[in-house]
Amino acid sequence: MNKTDPLKNIRIVLCEPGHPGNIGAAARAMKTMGLSRLYLVSPRRFPDPEAEWRASRATDVLAQAVVCASLDEALAGAAFAVACSARSREVAVPQATLREAAAQLVEIARTQDTALVFGNETYGLTTAEVNKCRLLASIPANPEYSSLNLAAAVQVCAYELRMATEAGDSAMAGARPRVMASHEEVEGFYRQLEQTMVDVGFLNPEHPKKLMPRLRRLFARAQLEKEEVNILRGIFKALGQPKPRK
Amino acid sequence: MNKTDPLKNIRIVLCEPGHPGNIGAAARAMKTMGLSRLYLVSPRRFPDPEAEWRASRATDVLAQAVVCASLDEALAGAAFAVACSARSREVAVPQATLREAAAQLVEIARTQDTALVFGNETYGLTTAEVNKCRLLASIPANPEYSSLNLAAAVQVCAYELRMATEAGDSAMAGARPRVMASHEEVEGFYRQLEQTMVDVGFLNPEHPKKLMPRLRRLFARAQLEKEEVNILRGIFKALGQPKPRK
Repeated sequence: MNKTDPLKNIRIVLCEPGHPGNIGAAARAMKTMGLSRLYLVSPRRFPDPEAEWRASRATDVLAQAVVCASLDEALAGAAFAVACSARSREVAVPQATLREAAAQLVEIARTQDTALVFGNETYGLTTAEVNKCRLLASIPANPEYSSLNLAAAVQVCAYELRMATEAGDSAMAGARPRVMASHEEVEGFYRQLEQTMVDVGFLNPEHPKKLMPRLRRLFARAQLEKEEVNILRGIFKALGQPKPRK
Repeated sequence: MNKTDPLKNIRIVLCEPGHPGNIGAAARAMKTMGLSRLYLVSPRRFPDPEAEWRASRATDVLAQAVVCASLDEALAGAAFAVACSARSREVAVPQATLREAAAQLVEIARTQDTALVFGNETYGLTTAEVNKCRLLASIPANPEYSSLNLAAAVQVCAYELRMATEAGDSAMAGARPRVMASHEEVEGFYRQLEQTMVDVGFLNPEHPKKLMPRLRRLFARAQLEKEEVNILRGIFKALGQPKPRK
């Protein structure tokens, strides 16, 4: 377990890869994004000079690759596994886009071992293999031709895992975690805002038009924090009171 | 000009690609994401059987590829061009991450011809080539090994272009396009808000604390629309005036 880099806790599992060139290219794709743990389930040819050549300067990933006899063996000890495949009506697991799945996977990989699983170049993952995972992630693609090369799919997924990691890191690097206002606090602010506008004659309760819905939409986009609601309530309270004499 | 699909208005330009296999793999990567316009500047070998083989079922993209003698020729008629390369201190153009650049590129490609430019496998894009573009986009990568294969880079970029297109499509599916407030309008609102708070004694100009910065941050997150600024100004104007007698 690596406690500082979630990418080190994500296994990339290739099920029965047919072409050693794709294994090498997948290793290169992984390394460019900071992934290093490659698991190969029954590869047809490995090790192989073509894998070495296509790996370019990622031969260290190939050298550390773990060859397994089954998907179960590759997933042993993983707390969460995501299958990468086209959407399917047959599978039992929930489905998500790659981007959504990457966010979940990285979050779990911050504290536990995880895996992202790819199928064979020709026939992909079987329903049984997908059902051994916890989530099915699909890469949005051209419906008329959605067949990404295996290493290209690994590259896109590795990229999204890195993006999700950086997003999480920068979110956590913020000086101050955001303390969001509760539902009740936000609703209390809206009631006060509405009453204040009625009091000064800006809002006619007989003909409210769409004023409150518009203001709600504005403040909903801002995702109000607890302290911000307190400030806004203070402002409208001060404005609703008789003005101080100068 | 395709008026319904921005992906059809984006050229993928490969400058001096050395390996025909990469040209074929790039064509496949493009087609999986709905891109079809491939431009090749002085390819070393093209057409070539290895390009055909690696293109898989995207040989139509290869068949329509435009071979050019210079980058200027490949960019002729394009209203916006983005260079894909590592970040650089030497170039004159603004820089962005791929995701940011993809959003801009797709937005412009909804009405005009655009291009995304990639360099040679070994030496990338020259500073002069980057400076012929309007923006430099970088793919976030492992700082210790950031060398994506050319076709893998095209795949990641094509994926982000598709994601940006789908995000834009769903945003535009909303009933009403957003008309944003101008810089001057937003600043005018902030000035009025500050003055009103001073008038009622909520804000002490001698000790303003962080009140205005906090309110600015809140409203910046909301990305105020023109009409919303008008509503807010109306509310604060009404609240700043003497109250109506009941």
